[in-house]
Amino acid sequence: MHIRTLTIVGVGLIGGSIGLAAKHRGLAERIVGVGRRPEPLQFAQDHGILDAQTPHLTEGVRNADLVVFCTPVQYIVDLALAAAPNCPAGCLLTDAGSTKAAIVEALEEHLPPGIHFVGSHPLAGSEKQGPEHAFANLFDGRLTVVTQTSRTDRAALDQTAAFWQALGSRVRIMSPEEHDRALATTSHLPHLVAASLASMLPTGLHSLTASGFRDVTRIAAGDPSLWTGIFASNRSAVLDALQHLDDQLANFRLALQTNDQQRLSDLLAQAKRVRDALGS
Amino acid sequence: MHIRTLTIVGVGLIGGSIGLAAKHRGLAERIVGVGRRPEPLQFAQDHGILDAQTPHLTEGVRNADLVVFCTPVQYIVDLALAAAPNCPAGCLLTDAGSTKAAIVEALEEHLPPGIHFVGSHPLAGSEKQGPEHAFANLFDGRLTVVTQTSRTDRAALDQTAAFWQALGSRVRIMSPEEHDRALATTSHLPHLVAASLASMLPTGLHSLTASGFRDVTRIAAGDPSLWTGIFASNRSAVLDALQHLDDQLANFRLALQTNDQQRLSDLLAQAKRVRDALGS
Repeated sequence: MHIRTLTIVGVGLIGGSIGLAAKHRGLAERIVGVGRRPEPLQFAQDHGILDAQTPHLTEGVRNADLVVFCTPVQYIVDLALAAAPNCPAGCLLTDAGSTKAAIVEALEEHLPPGIHFVGSHPLAGSEKQGPEHAFANLFDGRLTVVTQTSRTDRAALDQTAAFWQALGSRVRIMSPEEHDRALATTSHLPHLVAASLASMLPTGLHSLTASGFRDVTRIAAGDPSLWTGIFASNRSAVLDALQHLDDQLANFRLALQTNDQQRLSDLLAQAKRVRDALGS
Repeated sequence: MHIRTLTIVGVGLIGGSIGLAAKHRGLAERIVGVGRRPEPLQFAQDHGILDAQTPHLTEGVRNADLVVFCTPVQYIVDLALAAAPNCPAGCLLTDAGSTKAAIVEALEEHLPPGIHFVGSHPLAGSEKQGPEHAFANLFDGRLTVVTQTSRTDRAALDQTAAFWQALGSRVRIMSPEEHDRALATTSHLPHLVAASLASMLPTGLHSLTASGFRDVTRIAAGDPSLWTGIFASNRSAVLDALQHLDDQLANFRLALQTNDQQRLSDLLAQAKRVRDALGS
């Protein structure tokens, strides 16, 4: 795969890492960054992540072969709709958003002829923000979900998969809905729970936390605006996952109330089996 | 502080790290390990953590100046009661158990004259087990809670605090009940939640987890027997903390159900403030 101009809209941790990985792997001749705030773009250009940068979307996508939208999910649809008429024919659009159904639904059938959008979600990142936390190996061996629906252009799908593989990622094709249901359990509910536990901690107990509490709540340091967008675009699946969690917590509650130590031990052993199987 | 014979009952991650830290800091002339299973004791002796080892509690404590019980919490009271009559006069007993009220209540007034027990809980460790994961710096800069009640011998309290400080730890004096209430929020509830989230993960979704899920659920790999004992000895406080969590989750549920994005953002921002204040 070779790209003449790769445009990254939203140059933060993910967008910056895409730029770095593309640079390190010689994937693109020229990398253009688009963003509202000048500081992250300047940082990215100064650190060899970008060849050029602009606050103007129209200008940024003008010569693009591939545009990746790496903004918070709530901005992706509007930005892609605004970008598409200014893209050259044959240009491929994709994204790195954490939810997929709403974005794919809004974009797949609403772009000009010859401009295709394929949804993507690289399962990589951290609670940190900004291109200063970007690194070229972020996608190495990680999984990127690329979405397919009955309307997805087959060549665009293949090209999108090849792009993420060229950045070092493994790729799995899923429907947007299947992705969103899965991620509600593996990412969105855990974030909601981490935030709830963090909020419960009074200042006086900060010094009585150890590595366990820090691990469990680490992702609660994520950007509230970014996560509000994720939750708002996957409400139904997150509510279902939350109900499932309530059922699990009810098992623990009953075992505690009745001092059923065998049951407690069974619940903890089941959790350990899953966690051990997952690896470190 | 100088100890002629330090006896460690239960030579796992914590007991082994106490041995290593005491060795590295020249705190004890002789370190004796007591345990049921020969393999961890042999490992610990082969790796310079112990000078001697025995499966017999009576023999292990015979010449001890200080005995530290590092077994799962459910064994500490019985072991300390069995050990005390065989300890030399003036011997100090302490522990490293994650709950304190039940242990301190059962021991402080039930030991022979001249033998004192003071409860301790070093807030250090991990989900790993065994002396092969012990390390000498485990307590460096970490906090150890040492408990005080109206019955606690003042000299024994000071000696216990000095012991943990000599191992590199900071020390805070608290009542056993205050400790247990605090740890229900900072440690026991997070473990219960991590276990619940881990249990929710079907095998088919393992590959769709990223670092967030792994962080949140890491402690669910902890030893079920050890954690059953912790939960069973702190049921009331854990149930209170679980109720508090339910209230937090209800806030998120309502915001999701009503698509109240301002409220979602406020809840996430509050959690981020707490987590950021806690540090990495």
